[in-house]
Amino acid sequence: MIVVMKPGATPEHVQHVVELVREYGLKDHVITGTDRTVVACIGDKRMVDKSAIENAPMVERIVPILAPYKMASTEVKATHSQVRIGPAGFPIGGKKVGIIAGPCSVESREQLLRTAEAVRNAGCIGLRGGAFKPRTSPYSFQGLGEEGLKILAEARDRSGLAIVTEVIGLEQVEAVAQVADVLQVGARNMQHYPLLEAVGKSGKPVLLKRGMSATLEEWLLAAEYVIDAGNRNVILCERGIRTFEDYVRNTLALASVAELNDKTHLPVLVDPSHGTGHAHLVPAMCRAAVAAGADGLLVEAHLDPERALSDGAQSITPAALAGMMPVLRQIAQAIGRDL
Amino acid sequence: MIVVMKPGATPEHVQHVVELVREYGLKDHVITGTDRTVVACIGDKRMVDKSAIENAPMVERIVPILAPYKMASTEVKATHSQVRIGPAGFPIGGKKVGIIAGPCSVESREQLLRTAEAVRNAGCIGLRGGAFKPRTSPYSFQGLGEEGLKILAEARDRSGLAIVTEVIGLEQVEAVAQVADVLQVGARNMQHYPLLEAVGKSGKPVLLKRGMSATLEEWLLAAEYVIDAGNRNVILCERGIRTFEDYVRNTLALASVAELNDKTHLPVLVDPSHGTGHAHLVPAMCRAAVAAGADGLLVEAHLDPERALSDGAQSITPAALAGMMPVLRQIAQAIGRDL
Amino acid sequence: MIVVMKPGATPEHVQHVVELVREYGLKDHVITGTDRTVVACIGDKRMVDKSAIENAPMVERIVPILAPYKMASTEVKATHSQVRIGPAGFPIGGKKVGIIAGPCSVESREQLLRTAEAVRNAGCIGLRGGAFKPRTSPYSFQGLGEEGLKILAEARDRSGLAIVTEVIGLEQVEAVAQVADVLQVGARNMQHYPLLEAVGKSGKPVLLKRGMSATLEEWLLAAEYVIDAGNRNVILCERGIRTFEDYVRNTLALASVAELNDKTHLPVLVDPSHGTGHAHLVPAMCRAAVAAGADGLLVEAHLDPERALSDGAQSITPAALAGMMPVLRQIAQAIGRDL
Amino acid sequence: MIVVMKPGATPEHVQHVVELVREYGLKDHVITGTDRTVVACIGDKRMVDKSAIENAPMVERIVPILAPYKMASTEVKATHSQVRIGPAGFPIGGKKVGIIAGPCSVESREQLLRTAEAVRNAGCIGLRGGAFKPRTSPYSFQGLGEEGLKILAEARDRSGLAIVTEVIGLEQVEAVAQVADVLQVGARNMQHYPLLEAVGKSGKPVLLKRGMSATLEEWLLAAEYVIDAGNRNVILCERGIRTFEDYVRNTLALASVAELNDKTHLPVLVDPSHGTGHAHLVPAMCRAAVAAGADGLLVEAHLDPERALSDGAQSITPAALAGMMPVLRQIAQAIGRDL
Repeated sequence: MIVVMKPGATPEHVQHVVELVREYGLKDHVITGTDRTVVACIGDKRMVDKSAIENAPMVERIVPILAPYKMASTEVKATHSQVRIGPAGFPIGGKKVGIIAGPCSVESREQLLRTAEAVRNAGCIGLRGGAFKPRTSPYSFQGLGEEGLKILAEARDRSGLAIVTEVIGLEQVEAVAQVADVLQVGARNMQHYPLLEAVGKSGKPVLLKRGMSATLEEWLLAAEYVIDAGNRNVILCERGIRTFEDYVRNTLALASVAELNDKTHLPVLVDPSHGTGHAHLVPAMCRAAVAAGADGLLVEAHLDPERALSDGAQSITPAALAGMMPVLRQIAQAIGRDL
Repeated sequence: MIVVMKPGATPEHVQHVVELVREYGLKDHVITGTDRTVVACIGDKRMVDKSAIENAPMVERIVPILAPYKMASTEVKATHSQVRIGPAGFPIGGKKVGIIAGPCSVESREQLLRTAEAVRNAGCIGLRGGAFKPRTSPYSFQGLGEEGLKILAEARDRSGLAIVTEVIGLEQVEAVAQVADVLQVGARNMQHYPLLEAVGKSGKPVLLKRGMSATLEEWLLAAEYVIDAGNRNVILCERGIRTFEDYVRNTLALASVAELNDKTHLPVLVDPSHGTGHAHLVPAMCRAAVAAGADGLLVEAHLDPERALSDGAQSITPAALAGMMPVLRQIAQAIGRDL
Repeated sequence: MIVVMKPGATPEHVQHVVELVREYGLKDHVITGTDRTVVACIGDKRMVDKSAIENAPMVERIVPILAPYKMASTEVKATHSQVRIGPAGFPIGGKKVGIIAGPCSVESREQLLRTAEAVRNAGCIGLRGGAFKPRTSPYSFQGLGEEGLKILAEARDRSGLAIVTEVIGLEQVEAVAQVADVLQVGARNMQHYPLLEAVGKSGKPVLLKRGMSATLEEWLLAAEYVIDAGNRNVILCERGIRTFEDYVRNTLALASVAELNDKTHLPVLVDPSHGTGHAHLVPAMCRAAVAAGADGLLVEAHLDPERALSDGAQSITPAALAGMMPVLRQIAQAIGRDL
Repeated sequence: MIVVMKPGATPEHVQHVVELVREYGLKDHVITGTDRTVVACIGDKRMVDKSAIENAPMVERIVPILAPYKMASTEVKATHSQVRIGPAGFPIGGKKVGIIAGPCSVESREQLLRTAEAVRNAGCIGLRGGAFKPRTSPYSFQGLGEEGLKILAEARDRSGLAIVTEVIGLEQVEAVAQVADVLQVGARNMQHYPLLEAVGKSGKPVLLKRGMSATLEEWLLAAEYVIDAGNRNVILCERGIRTFEDYVRNTLALASVAELNDKTHLPVLVDPSHGTGHAHLVPAMCRAAVAAGADGLLVEAHLDPERALSDGAQSITPAALAGMMPVLRQIAQAIGRDL
């Protein structure tokens, strides 16, 4: 941490900061520049909210130097992690890029079983589908709940696909963990800490979506909550951020994939469905995500998008997905991976 | 809802849309313009996710006409609502502007009782203070928990101030509701629907902060969840949004106060502490918020901001707050209110 | 400037950075912390793009310490500047808050003269009106051009108001400077450096609008271009920034007023018309801007907003403006100013 | 255009709107829904600013239906355009993806000639390099000016590469057009309309960068200015947008490539250097851009990035670029293109 003093700060002002810094258990190092004095603070005290020093007289600002996350960081673990998911133990984060697809919501048994078959035949390794849905409006379809979980379990048994489904509240973690191969924490819940701790204790792999306006640091700190609760099997999923752009539901920031590959050992998926909000943009963003180095994709696929109960506008058909696979495979191979 | 067809859409494409619209239980009305055909859809079906029609051939986009929220809307209730809080039943949303102040976290009994006294003497009507803290990092101070609640209860008994404290998880709603006069739902939890339902059933007034990148519509839909669960006592609290600005923690969008006064009957507070992130910007934003028509303020006040365990950088002292009150009162009076 | 090394940087990596720093003419100061080594660089070399050092091996990032602007800064001139405008030499930046109002575009002689009269009677000190209009679409009304300038000159002669009008290109600076009392540089041109230099040489006061996604630093650097060309009479004008918010044309970030009052000696106006985009939000934002400490307002006023050739949606009538003045005056007086 | 009335609008309010609509030369079509009345307006009047109707009593909002741009639109020209550039007439927008690379600024004759050779040997088709630089700070290196143009001309003669260089002011268009094969309009100038008109009249292909917070619509309207001035040879260049993200200089929104391929016939390049701001992110974004369907790339390449006079942090070496080419070619081929 660096404390930058305002111009005109007197030695007394600097001394006051030095004392505060020492109170925090840090070593101080005062540097007097031509225009400014700064106090460099040495020591690792991630627990302390040192930004309060900003309120000391004649302090201009505090510049943190260390990233606030640790266990998710490549500083602590340099080699990339793999998270094995589903009955077949598919490794997310290895050489192979894995595609997980399925409807936004489980709508009926027949729908899901047919989708699972189509998705498996397309070469996917996982099936997504929500039983409990976090909907922006209380008047929207809220999912089939427990009934949906049963259907997902049957789909897994028949297809062998890994089941990825969202858990929207603490109170469902146990029930969902009995069925799901991967517990999804949605964008809206990325900073719901009690839920992060609960999925951390569940023992199941966790797919942690980026909050719609989360910085990478906040996202990795959310992952840190899960890891801190004892669960290292965290998969990150970029799903686009909120910006001023109005032709998309979210702006899909693919540079995050490259940056995360640098900063964290955790595997990274991309969700081009929420990442754009419109089916016609999904194929190009699937290709771009694989080219950028994503470890996999999470794609909304629906047998009849026009009649989907949720997210129809951003769903493609399983047939369209199957049609894309050869191209995605060639792109994966171009960068030394496979699919 | 208006369905806009792409140029070149044939009568068959339009007919297909008309049939989908009728499946949704809506009446259709086709208008053929010089460049485009649009299908206006008549009927109020807030429950249906009609955006899926976007996936029909040759549909360009869907334009919703109705706001998706209802009970929070001035269309349903034209007169502004008042929510009475605390032992004295202070009406938030009436002629008087109410100031609620206090530390980010309850740090100790002595700290809170002294703050409560200072805050009451400054003319405030409520005391804020977190017992359970949602912290971005698992390594930060997480609050005193149950112990904090007891201290808050004592502070209320001694000061007569309304206690406003955050509830960060479902499992605490009951315990917090026994102590708090107002249950605060934080920005990170604005779309945690199980929590919204739980506070909706608690019977206590709810202070619902705006999510850091929530649109007004999403925010009002979150309020709608609370109301839908049976609780009309919802107070909105603007706390700034995430933008590209880097000199503030959040960008305080005060036009929202005026827009909400138009669109909803619910009272609106402003939190200039989170809304800026820096103590030196708080006084100007307190004044601006009152001038914009806010029904009250939520201000972080700490006896010794340099040593606060959380949010020190954005806390002012109770003395600074007291010093501001005469000016805030004059501004309130200038717009026909009082404080 | 602080160069932060990556963890694992060897003494050779650090030495390489030290040599680069010395090449740039700076003094180095190496600090070895528990987790990181940083190289503090001492010396004021605003001219050099030191960020290139980021590309040296094992450098994580560069943290600038000094603000890149100088002459606009309170470090160079601590007392607030006043800029005198118009025939009456009204001081912008003094105790009195000045209101400048008028139509987006000069549409006709009659319109402008009648507006000028109404605006002066309302107690305004300046008249705004565009002769050359920067329009997003080439098909929109582009202004009356030279003819508009003549009308503005006549309006000034009759009303005594200061004329504020936009100059959108280098080639018009001379012609506009002969008529205008204040040359407005619009948001779209905030970083059109040839224009900044030209208005800097014009000798006329310059009203510099904030670019729609400019940081405060970029904005002050734009002011620095004008000052650097020899013109200290720069008035800043906050007009809102582009964010995800969709109920407004721009998000009016009023904390900028307080922050600028801290960082720069230049006076600051607020434009609540562009800052919201909707007439019904303008009055509340006028009040909030004055309460936040703005030195004045720039308001779009039109005699018949429904039929305005541009910006009708955000224009209020001169009568509405006149009606607001007593309240604005009381707010100004509450904070020790006048209007 | 659809005019949405507020609830409670009387027949008189609707009639008033109908009359305004007719004044604008449009046909009206009133639809009375269950909750709202809307007035659909038929006719193509792109020239008129109809948003003023929003100011009529009991109007809630105006929903535009037609895109405001025309000549850039696939509605007017369905087949994708090719723009031929440079001595060899390389077609941007055809099957082949074209890479343009070079330093941010022309720094010296030797630097540019060596870079040109390296860039050509890497398989690029164009050389970028700024002679006139728009720099955020007046204290930064502003480019070599006319001298830089001469060096660029020599580099073209020796290498056969197409020269792409920025024109930052009207007054340089003629001089730059004598040397450059492509006139670049930078992000800061995307809405500097006099410049758009001037490059439109220059007869040279124009590379139009996206403004850092421009919507696609505003960007296409900027292209429309150039086309309207008589120049159809417009190449769009996505270079990232400003968002809250802090690990990048800009957020590279690659879905724009797919959306533009749908909405406009103009070719689209991607600039991953400005699009990220950091050299370590450039390769992944080059790959992603090609996979997303970009017609080419604009990459900052410098022989010695650590000592670049501008944009060093985001420059890669020509050798790194050459190393990337085989992968980019395979990705291009995977989607049926070449490079």
